Amino acid sequence: MINAVGRNIPDELLTNGREVFQGNNYRDGQIYTKPGPTVKAQIKPQESKLVESIREAIRLCGVKDGMTVSFHHHFRDGDYVANLVMQEIADLGIKDITIAASSMGAAHDPIGKMIEDGVVTGLQTSGIRGKMGEAVSNGKLKTPCILRSHGGRVRAIEQGEVHIDVAFIGAPTADEYGNARGKGGKSDCGVLSYAMIDAKYADKVVVITDCLVPFPNFPPSIQAVDVDYVVVVEEIGNPQKIASKAARITQDPRELMMAKECARIMAATPYFKDGFSFQTGVGGASLAVNRFIEPLMRERGIRMRWGIGGISAPMVELLEKGLIDCLVDAQDFDIDSVNSVHKNQTHYEISTSQYCNPMNKGAFVNKLDFVVLAALEIDTGFNVNVVTGSDGLLMGAPGGHPDASAGAKCSIIVTPLVRGRIPTVCERIVTVTTPGESIDVLVTDYGIAVNPRRQDLIDHMSAAGIELTTIEALKDKAYSMVGVPDDIVFHDRVVAIMEARDGTILDVVRQIKNYEV
Amino acid sequence: MINAVGRNIPDELLTNGREVFQGNNYRDGQIYTKPGPTVKAQIKPQESKLVESIREAIRLCGVKDGMTVSFHHHFRDGDYVANLVMQEIADLGIKDITIAASSMGAAHDPIGKMIEDGVVTGLQTSGIRGKMGEAVSNGKLKTPCILRSHGGRVRAIEQGEVHIDVAFIGAPTADEYGNARGKGGKSDCGVLSYAMIDAKYADKVVVITDCLVPFPNFPPSIQAVDVDYVVVVEEIGNPQKIASKAARITQDPRELMMAKECARIMAATPYFKDGFSFQTGVGGASLAVNRFIEPLMRERGIRMRWGIGGISAPMVELLEKGLIDCLVDAQDFDIDSVNSVHKNQTHYEISTSQYCNPMNKGAFVNKLDFVVLAALEIDTGFNVNVVTGSDGLLMGAPGGHPDASAGAKCSIIVTPLVRGRIPTVCERIVTVTTPGESIDVLVTDYGIAVNPRRQDLIDHMSAAGIELTTIEALKDKAYSMVGVPDDIVFHDRVVAIMEARDGTILDVVRQIKNYEV
Repeated sequence: MINAVGRNIPDELLTNGREVFQGNNYRDGQIYTKPGPTVKAQIKPQESKLVESIREAIRLCGVKDGMTVSFHHHFRDGDYVANLVMQEIADLGIKDITIAASSMGAAHDPIGKMIEDGVVTGLQTSGIRGKMGEAVSNGKLKTPCILRSHGGRVRAIEQGEVHIDVAFIGAPTADEYGNARGKGGKSDCGVLSYAMIDAKYADKVVVITDCLVPFPNFPPSIQAVDVDYVVVVEEIGNPQKIASKAARITQDPRELMMAKECARIMAATPYFKDGFSFQTGVGGASLAVNRFIEPLMRERGIRMRWGIGGISAPMVELLEKGLIDCLVDAQDFDIDSVNSVHKNQTHYEISTSQYCNPMNKGAFVNKLDFVVLAALEIDTGFNVNVVTGSDGLLMGAPGGHPDASAGAKCSIIVTPLVRGRIPTVCERIVTVTTPGESIDVLVTDYGIAVNPRRQDLIDHMSAAGIELTTIEALKDKAYSMVGVPDDIVFHDRVVAIMEARDGTILDVVRQIKNYEV
Repeated sequence: MINAVGRNIPDELLTNGREVFQGNNYRDGQIYTKPGPTVKAQIKPQESKLVESIREAIRLCGVKDGMTVSFHHHFRDGDYVANLVMQEIADLGIKDITIAASSMGAAHDPIGKMIEDGVVTGLQTSGIRGKMGEAVSNGKLKTPCILRSHGGRVRAIEQGEVHIDVAFIGAPTADEYGNARGKGGKSDCGVLSYAMIDAKYADKVVVITDCLVPFPNFPPSIQAVDVDYVVVVEEIGNPQKIASKAARITQDPRELMMAKECARIMAATPYFKDGFSFQTGVGGASLAVNRFIEPLMRERGIRMRWGIGGISAPMVELLEKGLIDCLVDAQDFDIDSVNSVHKNQTHYEISTSQYCNPMNKGAFVNKLDFVVLAALEIDTGFNVNVVTGSDGLLMGAPGGHPDASAGAKCSIIVTPLVRGRIPTVCERIVTVTTPGESIDVLVTDYGIAVNPRRQDLIDHMSAAGIELTTIEALKDKAYSMVGVPDDIVFHDRVVAIMEARDGTILDVVRQIKNYEV
């Protein structure tokens, strides 16, 4: 069945109430009952939940074939926890495990092999890259991988579509009763926003730390009342890769030019006023936007009320300059943002439900004014791909992209028109990860296009003297520069389902041909 | 059927899996599935949840005959919210409402009339006093009132025995999206610990405030993701009665003497060491214990790691003197504790689930060293009554009494041997609210008795040269002073069920005879 972004979704996937994507607000107002975890009462006074090893925790939690386990990705490329746990599970001969992670990255290459071995037969994640991406793209995973936005993941958990049997939560600090924080220790990641959801909905919760601190470890991101066991290990991650040095603002003149255009566009809208809210991605041009909105804010004498998202240094800088009242933070991307959570009193941790779950009673993104994001590809319907490469390989993550852009009053994609020999603006993108109705403006190094759905924004741009072109013209320009791209040839087999925020099917990813031996 | 504290529970109450009390740890390890609320998805970006009146919120929430609504009691005797909401419900002609409150007090006299009118036909609460107590004690409520400890209330909600259709949450400050805090505004109550549970489990959540603040009101006790509507009213409470002036430490020499004995007893146990934890009630003698442990702590060179409970001035004083590392706070009893939550960085708000739910994965009380509490009556089996007066009238609240005393390694009851012509220590108390197995030591103005179950404590007291008597001897002494009390004569009808922490039936309260016209 053809969905609202023109993708043909195989009928065999449309079982158990699954539907194709029918527009951002199709399920607005839907009434549903949240599930609850199955827990074991601890009435007897008890001093500690410490167990001696991950293996012992796995045994005590009763992990067995067919179960679903979860991980978070606050440790980013420095994560050791998922590999440590999955290796123990594999060594115990347990198989047919579904991993429900907030994201998987290059750190998890060893799990690629477990997919081939049948230890892992299900995967639900936002990001997928490296060996895991190759394994899935090559059809090695027994069931289709389910890709979700950060908000979509929370929705799936809070609507009971994903039931986590055991959540393994790496925590920079924890006490012996399970109160855990993202702050402190040698593997400091600042916040534990993704894991806050898992702790509330998983039947069993294991906190894994490399820094045991005195009880109570407060205020906790993960509350002891939700934790069954605590394990202390040598290292939960590589600090160098968890909180890396702040990305320096790009010096690439093309990126700087695009960032400046984004700031001009923001300033031309009615939303750029005292008390506005803002999110930016971590791409070079997106990050640089902060530099260019600063003088415009000072000129107008306005302040930002709140900045949100994955937080990084440029946003912290504006906070510390007094140009932002507060930051609400679902992930820290660098050492500056980790440090800021520690020291700045108005830099707050939020759960990913608060951040962007589309189906709670109202997430932060629902009140967002601006978001500036990148894209791997964007088509002439403004649909964006951030998950598959131009060769069809799984190598990215929708992350908060579909969530922030759906919520924001003005969502801006900033991207060069071509990358190498690949057109970024094209007729047909490999995978739709964010529907075009969520995207308002496209900024490229060859011109700016506003989504025709937003005549109001077109008028504001004209009034501000910002020259616009059309997305078709940008596509034609791209094709004239690098030629019309060939269609990628896939096998028929669906290897991944790209869910829309609301759980409908936005697109499917099929097995690649060019990676076959 | 006779239960573990010797009370005869009518068989007709033992339906739907309800059992009689069988000891504190009878249900330890029970496995159950938590319920979840039925919610309506708010996908569409939305600026505000403000509605114009409580009546409009009631209408939008679909409140109808037979529903259960909830309130919290952080505003104590100064609460206006429950009356405002219930009056609108009554005016709308809605009837057969069950109120599931964390507690009801003297502020709620107007609801006594609604019980007689059939607007309110069910009541689940910790405390019950004043006109409501009289109405229930006189058999006016259609169904038996269910009395629970604070932990027992959370348990009942988290086990699905109480389903809240609409939670009305009074909040000192809130933003237009529903982020609510106990701090700030003109009706400052410090924390919103009771309401944190309601917000997570009620289908509909209405925040009622008299101080609207800019979004986001952070960090929130009640998160916007759980809130449907926000109403601004003139006043949610009487600030004078919410955070009253700190109770001055008693000058009554008898109370001071008992408090000093409590401190000596604490110091004689092995638990009185660096890093210990402590809770105290707000009775005159209980509060004064803080004064007497201070010199003992200094003498030994030890600090308290955490103080917990309803917090009041003497605990704040020890925190500010650097003798306590942190306070974990489920309710503020005076202006000093409210101010402390604002200014002291290690004075933390906790939910009542974290505080004392007996059936989560481990509450704070499970790790508590000492608690000092009062009693209306205590029998020779150390069973305590804190809910019914000597005339049988409902006039008190189990509160956190059964929870803290069950968890603490050393629980001390401090009470004068007689009050007026009424013996406090007696053969048979009116109502068992806390089972004797939870109580370790009784301190009276005529001697100290240790529960024979705690030979270890008896040995420690002897070693410290603390003279002990038996509880039978104390009872005999009381009777010799004021005579043997007459048994109260009740009607047969059960007007209230006193639940144990785990949901089993600890006792029943019957309709009083002496209040009949």
